[in-house]
Amino acid sequence: MQHVKLPRNEQGIQTVLAVLKQKFGERVQTGTSICEQHGHTTTWIENQPPDGVVFAHSTAEVADIVTICSAHEVPVIAYGTGTSLEGHLNAPAGGISIDVSQMDKVLAVNAGDLDCRVQPGVTREDLNTYLRDRGLFFPIDPGANASLGGMAATNASGTNAVRYGTMKDNVLSLEAVMADGRIIRTGTRARKSSAGYDLTRLLVGSEGTLCIITEITLQLQGIPEAISSAYCSFPSVDAACQTVMAVIQYGLPVARIELLDEVMVKAINPYAQLGLPETPLLLLEFHGTEASVVEQSEIFAALSEEHGGNGYKATETTEERNRLWKARHEAYWAMLQYRPGTHGVATDVCVPISKLAECVRASQTRASELGLIVPIVGHVGDGNFHATPLVDMSDPDEVDRAASFVSWLNELAISMDGTCTGEHGIGQGKMPYLVKELGEATDFMSDIKRALDPKGIMNPGKIF
Amino acid sequence: MQHVKLPRNEQGIQTVLAVLKQKFGERVQTGTSICEQHGHTTTWIENQPPDGVVFAHSTAEVADIVTICSAHEVPVIAYGTGTSLEGHLNAPAGGISIDVSQMDKVLAVNAGDLDCRVQPGVTREDLNTYLRDRGLFFPIDPGANASLGGMAATNASGTNAVRYGTMKDNVLSLEAVMADGRIIRTGTRARKSSAGYDLTRLLVGSEGTLCIITEITLQLQGIPEAISSAYCSFPSVDAACQTVMAVIQYGLPVARIELLDEVMVKAINPYAQLGLPETPLLLLEFHGTEASVVEQSEIFAALSEEHGGNGYKATETTEERNRLWKARHEAYWAMLQYRPGTHGVATDVCVPISKLAECVRASQTRASELGLIVPIVGHVGDGNFHATPLVDMSDPDEVDRAASFVSWLNELAISMDGTCTGEHGIGQGKMPYLVKELGEATDFMSDIKRALDPKGIMNPGKIF
Repeated sequence: MQHVKLPRNEQGIQTVLAVLKQKFGERVQTGTSICEQHGHTTTWIENQPPDGVVFAHSTAEVADIVTICSAHEVPVIAYGTGTSLEGHLNAPAGGISIDVSQMDKVLAVNAGDLDCRVQPGVTREDLNTYLRDRGLFFPIDPGANASLGGMAATNASGTNAVRYGTMKDNVLSLEAVMADGRIIRTGTRARKSSAGYDLTRLLVGSEGTLCIITEITLQLQGIPEAISSAYCSFPSVDAACQTVMAVIQYGLPVARIELLDEVMVKAINPYAQLGLPETPLLLLEFHGTEASVVEQSEIFAALSEEHGGNGYKATETTEERNRLWKARHEAYWAMLQYRPGTHGVATDVCVPISKLAECVRASQTRASELGLIVPIVGHVGDGNFHATPLVDMSDPDEVDRAASFVSWLNELAISMDGTCTGEHGIGQGKMPYLVKELGEATDFMSDIKRALDPKGIMNPGKIF
Repeated sequence: MQHVKLPRNEQGIQTVLAVLKQKFGERVQTGTSICEQHGHTTTWIENQPPDGVVFAHSTAEVADIVTICSAHEVPVIAYGTGTSLEGHLNAPAGGISIDVSQMDKVLAVNAGDLDCRVQPGVTREDLNTYLRDRGLFFPIDPGANASLGGMAATNASGTNAVRYGTMKDNVLSLEAVMADGRIIRTGTRARKSSAGYDLTRLLVGSEGTLCIITEITLQLQGIPEAISSAYCSFPSVDAACQTVMAVIQYGLPVARIELLDEVMVKAINPYAQLGLPETPLLLLEFHGTEASVVEQSEIFAALSEEHGGNGYKATETTEERNRLWKARHEAYWAMLQYRPGTHGVATDVCVPISKLAECVRASQTRASELGLIVPIVGHVGDGNFHATPLVDMSDPDEVDRAASFVSWLNELAISMDGTCTGEHGIGQGKMPYLVKELGEATDFMSDIKRALDPKGIMNPGKIF
């Protein structure tokens, strides 16, 4: 997939690189491979590398780099772990990648308030390792071991969102460098506030187009007294989705409820040696007191049985539970092994739960019509699922059919009063759908972009 | 309390009134008492009435009115029920109040998705009456029977926020009329989205300064299988706050946890004939299955005992529970009866929970030093509390002392990394504190304001 190139400010870029090299020495890199690695993301979108990468060590340094780039009208693109999925890190107008992966300190943990303050390069796994001894955890789990700065920038969520929400619900405040190099703090450590416009939630999900995030204050959770997992097979996607609706309507506080369709189960069975029936599957996790997880599990079992679920099985040991969730987390690799040599093109629609069964079924039918292999896995408690065509990139016709599938699915979700992206963001890949989804509202987004980044240097060519 | 007057566009106002009268006839009112009623709010801030009130019946009419006012650069101020607390409805530059209270239809309820779409004039009590037969409820309860448009505009929350969040967490999407009269929809019915900037959460809490809200899509909850209430007395505010911290750290999913200090208990006892010990009190509500509310109640009882709580009492009947919460909801009237003839000036700070005890104690000490009677009641699970000086408005010295108390408390909360407003909003009353709290971040709020409302006609003189 090619994307639009933007005009380059060649002279500005060369000047900025010279200034940055003087200031940051070896921490400025311009080699082809490192630049390509900083443009590359796990997507089929063409790589558009930046002209240089600067490894920043502090907020002041980020502000300094942005100020220099602003003076010369050169693009800046923040880089964490490079796990975004829609070309967010590409540099269609060239420019400077600000790599914040070495800003990786946990700055404060306030156990009494269940919050912490971290630098943007801290990854979610690093944070959870750091927190474990304190009996705390950070629940947002997009699968990849992404940086928390990147997760904030794309409003990541994932498997736990049905219970704990998205990054938007768990970021209390940001420190950010704005387009003119000024440093702001968007909120306090208060759990809620009605003080002025919600800059925190405007910047969360702004994909580097309004600011560079340099610190994040996160809300944490206590590690639950008890955690248990379960899985249940269903005769059809409909039956599984009906069960999900029943669970949500019941108000059962499931921590995770994930759908794997039959193709996905076929892929994961050999990969994780699970031997599951090759029919749609729900994977669950319950958090609470010992008594409440037992009760939740029993209620779920009853609800699933009502909707035709069979083979309900609660895991009995932590090992068994970990094995199950490891398999879920490795779904992407299982897919690629299912059809070796292909590229998995992850879609990311989210629809009202009442439309979920229809949307998943239609996706299966459409994939079949197009002769595509498309495993489906989803955070279905939110109505969010990923249909992932496994594409032989050397076959132009198959690439075209996959592109047609992706486009068709985004439009279907929008027609169902859903969104073209539940958690991956717009980046380059979903720009055509944003306007279809939100119409004239996007004009006001552009107004905000122009107001906060008048020179257009913050991650240009993304979202709009 | 006087507030700044802004220059009036006299000619524009007269022209707009003439045009509106032609279009809307009797639905345009300019009488003194109706104009004063539309400027008046439950605050000690001076009344600044608009020049006319238009009762709008549809989104198209609101758009029409805003377009007319925009053409003549005349201020517009949306009005729902008039229960805001910081002068949000005042018209310091005159202009037109757009009364949306007759836009009071529930437009759709999607029981399967636990969402609904309402017009802005629907009040929270009306919505809950409408939903009851469907087994659903909308949890946000700021006390007053506010309109949902107004609740969205100020990011209201209240007693249930500790479990269900604020308006920001429960508004899925808005339809809004922007400053140039264009109508936008900010989101879809998907439960989560990463599609572009979060206009929904930017407009929620924008206090009428960026748009007029004409429809709200809300997330709903199933009415829990079981609801139970309890209360418990404590020897000190510290002991009560320590218990709150323990509850939050335990992860106990309390639906409500409210603090009443000793002065508040003294006020409420005779008013609601409760006969409670005149020491700090926590009021609780638990939602869940029959078994889980019993377990929650037992865990709370154990935690409170550890921290010196005594007289723990779970209510046994729905009547008893309703009586308790009715008393809590009528706290404001109980206060006024406690010191008749006074005005209650509600403050609204929110601090990290670890600072709550210190902040409440300091408030009590300061009130005593200033010779003020200041009952305190709080949504303490969020660290949010209202200290409400009961002020004899005919005594200028007492008014000064109360003003000094309010100012001191806002600054104390900010110094504790908290906020000057947990749920009431900035309006006119808290403008001086916003900059103290968020510094240069407010410059970027102003940039957004100018970008979306270049003529400055949307509720001018508020927030900034």
